[in-house]
Amino acid sequence: MKNWRDNIRKVVPYTPGEQPKKEGMIKLNTNENPYPPSPSVRKRLEEMSVDTLRLYPDPTAGVLVRALADHYGVQDDQVFVGVGSDDVLAMAFMTFFNSDRPIFFPDITYSFYPVWADVFRIGYETKALDKDFRIRPEDYYGENGGVIFPNPNAPTSILEPLDLIRDILEHNRDVVVIVDEAYIDFGGVSALELVNEYDNLLVVRTYSKSRSMAGLRVGFAIGHPDLIKALNDVKYSFNSYTMDAFSLALGAETLKDTGYFEECMEKIIRTRAWTAKELTRLGFVFPEPMANFIFASHPDIPAEELFARLREQDIYVRYFPLPRIDNYLRITIGTDEQMKTLIRFLEKYINGRK
Amino acid sequence: MKNWRDNIRKVVPYTPGEQPKKEGMIKLNTNENPYPPSPSVRKRLEEMSVDTLRLYPDPTAGVLVRALADHYGVQDDQVFVGVGSDDVLAMAFMTFFNSDRPIFFPDITYSFYPVWADVFRIGYETKALDKDFRIRPEDYYGENGGVIFPNPNAPTSILEPLDLIRDILEHNRDVVVIVDEAYIDFGGVSALELVNEYDNLLVVRTYSKSRSMAGLRVGFAIGHPDLIKALNDVKYSFNSYTMDAFSLALGAETLKDTGYFEECMEKIIRTRAWTAKELTRLGFVFPEPMANFIFASHPDIPAEELFARLREQDIYVRYFPLPRIDNYLRITIGTDEQMKTLIRFLEKYINGRK
Repeated sequence: MKNWRDNIRKVVPYTPGEQPKKEGMIKLNTNENPYPPSPSVRKRLEEMSVDTLRLYPDPTAGVLVRALADHYGVQDDQVFVGVGSDDVLAMAFMTFFNSDRPIFFPDITYSFYPVWADVFRIGYETKALDKDFRIRPEDYYGENGGVIFPNPNAPTSILEPLDLIRDILEHNRDVVVIVDEAYIDFGGVSALELVNEYDNLLVVRTYSKSRSMAGLRVGFAIGHPDLIKALNDVKYSFNSYTMDAFSLALGAETLKDTGYFEECMEKIIRTRAWTAKELTRLGFVFPEPMANFIFASHPDIPAEELFARLREQDIYVRYFPLPRIDNYLRITIGTDEQMKTLIRFLEKYINGRK
Repeated sequence: MKNWRDNIRKVVPYTPGEQPKKEGMIKLNTNENPYPPSPSVRKRLEEMSVDTLRLYPDPTAGVLVRALADHYGVQDDQVFVGVGSDDVLAMAFMTFFNSDRPIFFPDITYSFYPVWADVFRIGYETKALDKDFRIRPEDYYGENGGVIFPNPNAPTSILEPLDLIRDILEHNRDVVVIVDEAYIDFGGVSALELVNEYDNLLVVRTYSKSRSMAGLRVGFAIGHPDLIKALNDVKYSFNSYTMDAFSLALGAETLKDTGYFEECMEKIIRTRAWTAKELTRLGFVFPEPMANFIFASHPDIPAEELFARLREQDIYVRYFPLPRIDNYLRITIGTDEQMKTLIRFLEKYINGRK
């Protein structure tokens, strides 16, 4: 007899970073922002009435789409929003990657890409980063069903220049190229300026890192109106009302407070520079960090050991037991105080081990 | 030359009901609850800190899952949550309907089912409701890849008895059977009591109707732990963090206030009875309403005409220009005041037309 279990979609799901909630812990494992959202968000929340929750939200997410379009200087029909950039990326995989050719992405990258490819039955080929973890643009010249990479890349924190992105776009005019800019606000140059030039470029962003709102679940994409329309058509075939009343109101509100946002970015970039200097002093090596994390390796101490010792101190960082990167730690930039505690412990531990 | 547009997933998206926001309008078109969420929800919202938004929410949605499990007397591993029941249903289609046989659902039903089937490339056969819009269980005896129907059905408001559901389950032990109970709280008997008996039964619910929280986007499913695990595996392959901080906190909170909830249900059921009596007096015919809407037809006046006239009065109801039901209006039960205004206008219009 047949069993309903035979028809289940078989997947190997993505494993999100742990989300421990321990009093006094130092959480540097999922690249959250150490600073709270803009005070204007608190004010806007206080003005919200729960009574309106009885109504469906605007399915077009108009208030949020318009706010993003204004903020980034594009038209409303160039903006798509979703429940975090993971939702946006999932929709983009479903919408654009339907060729019989494999899509291309780097071998070391956001570990969700192969998961989406699997769940949607999309063939893919990974392209090895060079020995310094840089993208080799010529790897992406061959025939493919689409290209996706983060910039800065995760978990390496490496930023590639716009010239490289333009090069990949020039060699891929017939497929959609997605640049996943989750970490671009921490000092990178965005590919947004290319969206009016290349109708096949989709730039994806998130509120979870630079905008201190991982708990709100907002992500967005900017691209040619035809790309956005295709995304919306698929989204409306999946779930018409994805953005709740809070995401719409608070997501639009936070864009107004550019002063607070820039101040946070400057603080994190400053703390990153200090942390980088200290890690270097302790013997760590790492690519130049251009995201809100540092991808560091120590020549003498296995990353797995450091990961475990830090955990015992309630200092959580991320460790990936994967080929080529299993001797690295991905360390999120927290507050100055948190990074000092981290460095203090590492210094003591490294000296004690000598 | 190939074009990226050739690889777009082609869909005919679901068309949600309009969401006009006009001062003073009477909105009876998307089956929202006329009463606000429980006062305890307001209190819980006031206690929430925006500062915690900087952190990712719990990807397991633990607080909400536990609250639902407690409330419905099941185990935590029997509960799945999503961004509205549309998200839950989309995940269920993706997860369970992967056979090479068509899935079955009624010809007159929630119009999103064929949309999900199309977007996920699932074959389907619709089964005609009988002349009274009832489900004929024997239509579902044949070999299929899965079965789904709402109970009460939408847009008819007809409730089928548990015996019929049991009959369909008995003839479909080898596929997943989904009972979509968006409207069950308005007086129906739930199939929840069958989930421990049938490991292939998934019962889906929403916060958007009876719980007055369409704006929060919360839906859930209850079933055998193997069904829930399969759903979670696919969900984690799609978007790990779907439920935001507000959905988790407020979604759990509202379950505590059973008194307020029951009071709202009683009020709506009472208003429904009054509205039904009045519509009958005006000559309308309709199946016995068991949801928070009435599916009414007038023998002398085309539904499309009434729909347009009501709209001119800023009274929004839903009209479906579809075979068999294009002479019906789906009228949501609002407050007593709103229903009186509706009946007053209909009475005047019908009399004026004679």
